Amino acid sequence: MLRGQSRKKDQVRPVKITRNYTKYAEGSVLIEVGDTKVLCNASIEEKVPPFLKGKSEGWITAEYNMLPRSTQTRKVRDISKLKIDGRTMEIQRLIGRALRTVVDLKALGEKTIWIDCDVIQADGGTRTTAITGSFIALVDAVNKLHKENPFKIYPIRNFVTAISVGIVDDEILLDLCYEEDSKAMVDMNIVMTDEGEYIEVQGTGEQKSFSRNTLNELLDLAEKGIKQMIHMQKESLKMDSLWIGTGGVID
Amino acid sequence: MLRGQSRKKDQVRPVKITRNYTKYAEGSVLIEVGDTKVLCNASIEEKVPPFLKGKSEGWITAEYNMLPRSTQTRKVRDISKLKIDGRTMEIQRLIGRALRTVVDLKALGEKTIWIDCDVIQADGGTRTTAITGSFIALVDAVNKLHKENPFKIYPIRNFVTAISVGIVDDEILLDLCYEEDSKAMVDMNIVMTDEGEYIEVQGTGEQKSFSRNTLNELLDLAEKGIKQMIHMQKESLKMDSLWIGTGGVID
Amino acid sequence: MLRGQSRKKDQVRPVKITRNYTKYAEGSVLIEVGDTKVLCNASIEEKVPPFLKGKSEGWITAEYNMLPRSTQTRKVRDISKLKIDGRTMEIQRLIGRALRTVVDLKALGEKTIWIDCDVIQADGGTRTTAITGSFIALVDAVNKLHKENPFKIYPIRNFVTAISVGIVDDEILLDLCYEEDSKAMVDMNIVMTDEGEYIEVQGTGEQKSFSRNTLNELLDLAEKGIKQMIHMQKESLKMDSLWIGTGGVID
Amino acid sequence: MLRGQSRKKDQVRPVKITRNYTKYAEGSVLIEVGDTKVLCNASIEEKVPPFLKGKSEGWITAEYNMLPRSTQTRKVRDISKLKIDGRTMEIQRLIGRALRTVVDLKALGEKTIWIDCDVIQADGGTRTTAITGSFIALVDAVNKLHKENPFKIYPIRNFVTAISVGIVDDEILLDLCYEEDSKAMVDMNIVMTDEGEYIEVQGTGEQKSFSRNTLNELLDLAEKGIKQMIHMQKESLKMDSLWIGTGGVID
Amino acid sequence: MLRGQSRKKDQVRPVKITRNYTKYAEGSVLIEVGDTKVLCNASIEEKVPPFLKGKSEGWITAEYNMLPRSTQTRKVRDISKLKIDGRTMEIQRLIGRALRTVVDLKALGEKTIWIDCDVIQADGGTRTTAITGSFIALVDAVNKLHKENPFKIYPIRNFVTAISVGIVDDEILLDLCYEEDSKAMVDMNIVMTDEGEYIEVQGTGEQKSFSRNTLNELLDLAEKGIKQMIHMQKESLKMDSLWIGTGGVID
Amino acid sequence: MLRGQSRKKDQVRPVKITRNYTKYAEGSVLIEVGDTKVLCNASIEEKVPPFLKGKSEGWITAEYNMLPRSTQTRKVRDISKLKIDGRTMEIQRLIGRALRTVVDLKALGEKTIWIDCDVIQADGGTRTTAITGSFIALVDAVNKLHKENPFKIYPIRNFVTAISVGIVDDEILLDLCYEEDSKAMVDMNIVMTDEGEYIEVQGTGEQKSFSRNTLNELLDLAEKGIKQMIHMQKESLKMDSLWIGTGGVID
Repeated sequence: MLRGQSRKKDQVRPVKITRNYTKYAEGSVLIEVGDTKVLCNASIEEKVPPFLKGKSEGWITAEYNMLPRSTQTRKVRDISKLKIDGRTMEIQRLIGRALRTVVDLKALGEKTIWIDCDVIQADGGTRTTAITGSFIALVDAVNKLHKENPFKIYPIRNFVTAISVGIVDDEILLDLCYEEDSKAMVDMNIVMTDEGEYIEVQGTGEQKSFSRNTLNELLDLAEKGIKQMIHMQKESLKMDSLWIGTGGVID
Repeated sequence: MLRGQSRKKDQVRPVKITRNYTKYAEGSVLIEVGDTKVLCNASIEEKVPPFLKGKSEGWITAEYNMLPRSTQTRKVRDISKLKIDGRTMEIQRLIGRALRTVVDLKALGEKTIWIDCDVIQADGGTRTTAITGSFIALVDAVNKLHKENPFKIYPIRNFVTAISVGIVDDEILLDLCYEEDSKAMVDMNIVMTDEGEYIEVQGTGEQKSFSRNTLNELLDLAEKGIKQMIHMQKESLKMDSLWIGTGGVID
Repeated sequence: MLRGQSRKKDQVRPVKITRNYTKYAEGSVLIEVGDTKVLCNASIEEKVPPFLKGKSEGWITAEYNMLPRSTQTRKVRDISKLKIDGRTMEIQRLIGRALRTVVDLKALGEKTIWIDCDVIQADGGTRTTAITGSFIALVDAVNKLHKENPFKIYPIRNFVTAISVGIVDDEILLDLCYEEDSKAMVDMNIVMTDEGEYIEVQGTGEQKSFSRNTLNELLDLAEKGIKQMIHMQKESLKMDSLWIGTGGVID
Repeated sequence: MLRGQSRKKDQVRPVKITRNYTKYAEGSVLIEVGDTKVLCNASIEEKVPPFLKGKSEGWITAEYNMLPRSTQTRKVRDISKLKIDGRTMEIQRLIGRALRTVVDLKALGEKTIWIDCDVIQADGGTRTTAITGSFIALVDAVNKLHKENPFKIYPIRNFVTAISVGIVDDEILLDLCYEEDSKAMVDMNIVMTDEGEYIEVQGTGEQKSFSRNTLNELLDLAEKGIKQMIHMQKESLKMDSLWIGTGGVID
Repeated sequence: MLRGQSRKKDQVRPVKITRNYTKYAEGSVLIEVGDTKVLCNASIEEKVPPFLKGKSEGWITAEYNMLPRSTQTRKVRDISKLKIDGRTMEIQRLIGRALRTVVDLKALGEKTIWIDCDVIQADGGTRTTAITGSFIALVDAVNKLHKENPFKIYPIRNFVTAISVGIVDDEILLDLCYEEDSKAMVDMNIVMTDEGEYIEVQGTGEQKSFSRNTLNELLDLAEKGIKQMIHMQKESLKMDSLWIGTGGVID
Repeated sequence: MLRGQSRKKDQVRPVKITRNYTKYAEGSVLIEVGDTKVLCNASIEEKVPPFLKGKSEGWITAEYNMLPRSTQTRKVRDISKLKIDGRTMEIQRLIGRALRTVVDLKALGEKTIWIDCDVIQADGGTRTTAITGSFIALVDAVNKLHKENPFKIYPIRNFVTAISVGIVDDEILLDLCYEEDSKAMVDMNIVMTDEGEYIEVQGTGEQKSFSRNTLNELLDLAEKGIKQMIHMQKESLKMDSLWIGTGGVID
């Protein structure tokens, strides 16, 4: 059996969330899921990208980057190749979309929140870990704004978190570490709200195709993982998540 | 009702596949799905990327590009910005993965097949159209190799095709055109084999999250579309698809 | 004898011009000269480059690109090398200059017309073909503006077209195909108006120098080709070329 | 008085060195000097740059990068501008030179050691902090090589460390924090060995020139700081620094 | 009358050629034509570009660059824009072609000669000046090779030089300075051998088209200028041009 | 003995300063120090970089570049690599800082002075030569402004010049040529005012560390060289340096 005694197939790795990890960012979270460590910083900028100018609407955008030695062999920096690789692009677009879907951008107003996810150590699941951690950093940044100048409608509507599932040696596993991931026949990332609704479903037959039944089993397992991660987020935020999911109207 | 009389919710747009569209490429297909037109060229190169050197294995890689005026307003060329945009990167990675999954790369041998998808006119569904057309170009290129020097094991194991589904004005629609796509709350692309197995499932709540039930309805509808597209591919290839799905062993 | 029976030394290849080839561009022409196929799209933008701001003058600029498999062996995309090659630059500058010379930019007003020439298949003479096709696309785009809001002075003053001539195996040939071009000792491109005046004369001794007499013979032959191409343009545009060459004043 | 009670003019900020901070790098140090935090990873690569091929000599090279929100306002990533800024270039060249000077590259043999300094939080002195931390990471990486396959001559000859001094409001201060640094009239960085010899002296009159006397006072103060930093390095490495400074011959 | 008394319409500006201008280049020429000053260095490299490997043939390639303040207003460096502009590309391709046409590349053998033309001061005609000066630098570099190790066939077959002509205020002028060039309706550059044969003919109707008669007048005038420039080259090279045009066989 | 009879250890190479070397730049100096030749052009631009907008303050910035064959073997142009190398960046930052330190940027007013240092021939000491020559070009440019529209406070407060010193074969030498520099164990560049105050001190133990005593000897020798260079600058500028060092107030 693959994972040995140490972890069950439907069990996520130990999660550790450190808020206020750095002192300058409006939201700063170091999230560790097993040996995967991602620093998620949220920065507020008092302007919006050109396509939103004058629309009284905000924006959330994400950048993702792996430090050169976050991986087993050293990864050359993007700037040395003058190119961002495609995987990085995909991931940062995914993080941005996931967060925007749970935020009322009108309520946020003409601001951009930049989410920087820098991977310190990569042991599988960096994109899902980045989403889970960035959400906390986003809440902290939004609350900072809220304290200075309360929103009429609190802009965060839902918790959002993410988890991976996959098929490794014909077993369906939750929250794959790097070794498992590199052997996976099918690999899936799910982004979900605390109400159990999907924001993103991405499943790939890396080496072989998979049936509808298998898809359903993967979705069932992912849901278990999402619940565990949402729980961790709530534990970490405690009272600071008070306004989320209140329907948004504050009085 | 959204589509008027002209097309049912579960109906794909008219498909036209022109093989041998250009004279130099080993496989060359102009595929039209409604007003979306993509030129898919397959080129054979007698070497493999560095990471495969000496492994007696082949590779398939794809590049996707929109011509500047394939879109409603002119799109600046990548080279003018010195950057490939993230969407393009995502799509070309998707096309490459989809084709590789149905090909036995060992059987292909030390060759690279380059798939170039250049969008002549974009009216929604360019990525799924590109996959559907590229598969035909790939078959033509592989058959050309096969005629010159027959493979021991024919490298293409399955048909692969793709289709989009989405939720527009609370209706679940198959094969979205641009206007529908730009209003979609949920957008999903499915890549599937002729045996009804998934290669890729990508669903995004562009503006709102969606339930498991909705996901299931989307998957059901996509399957209908996939069947129509597989049928079109078979019609186009006719006897030239003889070797696909024979289990691969040729005698 | 080089060309066999199929084509005389002073004969251009068969020309096919398809207008309105794509649906979004204000002018869209697929031009085929022999096996050379170029898609020429004209796009109108309601602003001018910085150096023309506030001068009540318009601008016409061209971009030229070969699709990766328009050529016998696959050509790497510019964006993969982060560089536009010099030949491409030369050609797009030539196309822009040629069109601007026959247009009254003051009469056009503060607009930019972007000409995109994308080579679908390259069998020699892509730059001259691009000029000939782009002119038609330009006329269609200008007429579209004219229908919406008539110009006081119609901005197109002349037809412009282009052709190549060259010396191959000591024979002077008109409209070289790729095979001829690659063996040419001298290669010349002529851009001319329908009044028989030169806009551009570019002759290169690729492998050896040439005398004034040879230059004169090349110029004589080019003139023949230009007449044939102007004829094709007039056939294609018919009544839509009504305004060209009227002296420009419309009443 | 500028620093208040909290720190004397000739006192360095509290230093914390965490070895083995990440699990993949051959040497991995998180160094904190006051609120400045730099992750220094050393990676071993079994080849040398082209200019050293076949010379039986090794190489040490450094890259330095600030995370986007290591600073008070968010810093755009290099890759977004397609350029490394000059300051970053200067610093990474300085770190590489400093480490190479204390290493016997012949003794190291045909290997490259990559030093990656990623600034997590920047509160002044990031370049000197990076040198001090990188040295520890280098020792750990070299010792790892030494354990697997003992060097005949241990390649590290000396400790190397660095500190800043400067003139702020007419006072000469040791180890400037960001606020002090941004007001400094003169700014100096000193790189020194444990034997009190200079490797690098860089003094800049940011806003005004300075006399030879002032230079001497700055050099005196820097020496005090260097001693404190060398002490911290020795405390951190303890027995693992056993071979350094033994004259290099091991028996 | 445009040029005043100082220069006749068919007169070139004063030419000054300084050989051995810098000490490292195998050929180094500072050429001044009026106020236009171009430094032309020829460098020998003992290898050829990839497309010539193993063909026992040499190559000549040119790079052209304007120093930032060679022009009236400061020109931003290419590296600051990460792009070579199209004009520069055209010119450096032209210089390379011109020189290659008079050289027997087989006789040269597997070497590349790099021609670097850096414009110190630009007052019109920089491209023709660069060709004229580069030819001298090329001869010096080839002679240097010849002295060390005599060629069986001396590789330079002809002198090559270049001049501009143009129509300014309806007058046909030779060798345009910047002020004249910026007002020219028609602009032409001619590259010619000492035997009066064309290597390149480039005429552009910058603002209006021109007739065959005008073309002939321009060509006549250019020939006069070419003769003056060839004379200057011969004066400068004197005995060092001994082998050029001897038919190439040396005994 | 290293330098032979030709030059003493404490002697700078012959210096030649040619003012008004090119005709467009507001200040243009060709400076030759031994065989090192650098063209230093100063250009005035009537605007400031974004970070200074609206602060009624000017800016001075420098760019440094080596022509491809200024060096013994040809150096590839930056634009061919799409990267400025680190050494170039360091040097241009150094030149800018050095000049800004002796200029009252408030007195200069909202202008940028661009300093372009293009190395024609490199035989050691190009950065120090560039500083020495740029200062003259700067004075000429500032005087040109002053003649057109007198400053209330003349913006240049001091002369600034630079020189190198180093340890070669255990001897301390002034003003190293390339051959000496390439063998130097310690290399130092000093930037100083005519009042004997430091602007920049940069000493590097290229191959070994050095003691405080050695540092002092190097500083003593550098001071001698600085005096010789300041003398050369005064000789060159003569009456044009009248305003420098007058305390700046003009009446």
